[in-house]
Amino acid sequence: MVKIGYLGPRGTFTKLAVDTAFNGENKQSFTTIPECIDAVYRDEIDIGVVPLENAIEGTVQLTVDYLVHQVRLPVMAEIVVPIQQHLLVKPGFTGELSELSSVYSHGQAIAQCHQFLHSHMPDANMNFTSSTGKAAEMVSESGESIAAIGNRLAASEYGLTIHQENIHDYPNNHTRFAVLAKDKEIIRIKHEAETEKTSLLITLPSDYAGALYQVLAAFAWRKMSLSKIESRPMKTGLGNYFFIVDVNQPYDDVLFPGVKAELEALGCDVTILGTYPVHQIDL
Amino acid sequence: MVKIGYLGPRGTFTKLAVDTAFNGENKQSFTTIPECIDAVYRDEIDIGVVPLENAIEGTVQLTVDYLVHQVRLPVMAEIVVPIQQHLLVKPGFTGELSELSSVYSHGQAIAQCHQFLHSHMPDANMNFTSSTGKAAEMVSESGESIAAIGNRLAASEYGLTIHQENIHDYPNNHTRFAVLAKDKEIIRIKHEAETEKTSLLITLPSDYAGALYQVLAAFAWRKMSLSKIESRPMKTGLGNYFFIVDVNQPYDDVLFPGVKAELEALGCDVTILGTYPVHQIDL
Repeated sequence: MVKIGYLGPRGTFTKLAVDTAFNGENKQSFTTIPECIDAVYRDEIDIGVVPLENAIEGTVQLTVDYLVHQVRLPVMAEIVVPIQQHLLVKPGFTGELSELSSVYSHGQAIAQCHQFLHSHMPDANMNFTSSTGKAAEMVSESGESIAAIGNRLAASEYGLTIHQENIHDYPNNHTRFAVLAKDKEIIRIKHEAETEKTSLLITLPSDYAGALYQVLAAFAWRKMSLSKIESRPMKTGLGNYFFIVDVNQPYDDVLFPGVKAELEALGCDVTILGTYPVHQIDL
Repeated sequence: MVKIGYLGPRGTFTKLAVDTAFNGENKQSFTTIPECIDAVYRDEIDIGVVPLENAIEGTVQLTVDYLVHQVRLPVMAEIVVPIQQHLLVKPGFTGELSELSSVYSHGQAIAQCHQFLHSHMPDANMNFTSSTGKAAEMVSESGESIAAIGNRLAASEYGLTIHQENIHDYPNNHTRFAVLAKDKEIIRIKHEAETEKTSLLITLPSDYAGALYQVLAAFAWRKMSLSKIESRPMKTGLGNYFFIVDVNQPYDDVLFPGVKAELEALGCDVTILGTYPVHQIDL
């Protein structure tokens, strides 16, 4: 049976993504992103699912930095899940919002629901927990006048009721997860992929005005469309940067090798981080 | 007296930045980034200090998104502080690392010290807290065989001893903070600024191959050097992006208006988020 590792604990958005995207494989929780990536690298698990863009459980920075600096594993798929934060209470609670004295959640989840909380629960105490799952656990073990902010999975894992749905400020927020594996063939995601992407890591030889412009020229004249570009400082000191570029098309034998050869002629270092399908999941 | 708000609680990296950069002004802790920004906007405080790039207390995304979508306040200065994570214990503990059974910290701080923990404390239990300050508080209130990961300020705030210095994996990690205010004149930062930057928000009219290339052309032919570029999805739906661009020079009356006019002619929207000094702080 395929072993899938994910950034836990129970009730996190990563677990929600894994449960929604994969069938009943053997699933194992890890406590940090590096531990989950290491486990794939050492063949202790077959697939690792870690956040690529998710303000609550981990930033793109930590995952990208670890893949760039420590362990090179290819991204085999991307899973995109909408962020839906709900106000969770104990099943016995049937009162009004104003009767809830305290709200527990991860600091970023509380921040994501800032407008709702400010308008509807201005007098409630805010309490920070290490994860949204932990907040749900605490509410499940306490009295009825406190609420948690978390996702649908956190509600079902800890026996809570959704008192108010979708209390997050922005309706179109998404989280992105990278599926890491050594063997592409073992990955079976339930949802069809609509698009394919290729992610590149590009290191510039030195900082100078217009360097990035030259890099982008290699894509632009080939009409290759970029869906993301982000500069990140190298860990070797200030003033050195690398770029992560997502191209909206799968790797091929003509365009990408052409880009790579041109950029290397400019003194850049180019690494293909992965070419993979993007699975957009509706909850 | 100038009132400075910051993302708390005690012992965080934001508080460390505020204490190091500012003299004895009136300082007030806020529990979320939006609350701190709102307080500046409503004139409840004069200056707000929030993380711009800091994996532990908040991501650039939340601060940038809130400034872009909710409250437009200019960035008046940037403070850059090195990340230094230490292993903190109670003063009475004088044993070996192997005698510490548990480590408490924010998940991202534990992840940042992954290699140290993996090599030197493979048997210790990892416990996640909502902040590094909270971890220090818990250790200060418990027995002697547990440790926290946090900064120097967390140690002094909670009466802990630094058992091992600088246990983070990457020596050149930094956190960046935005100093928000309506009036530039009231900001007095102790450290000299070495450079100045200008941050722009650029929205493209639609996605097409090479759009970003055209945008960068406006900077490149003027030999304006960029220190950061990041694309972020608009909250209005998938497929719309805006870009945050940091230019390594202060705003002027020739080059920047020229860039703005050219980009607007291409159908872009251009907003100056701020032109400000960068204060690099050594701890």
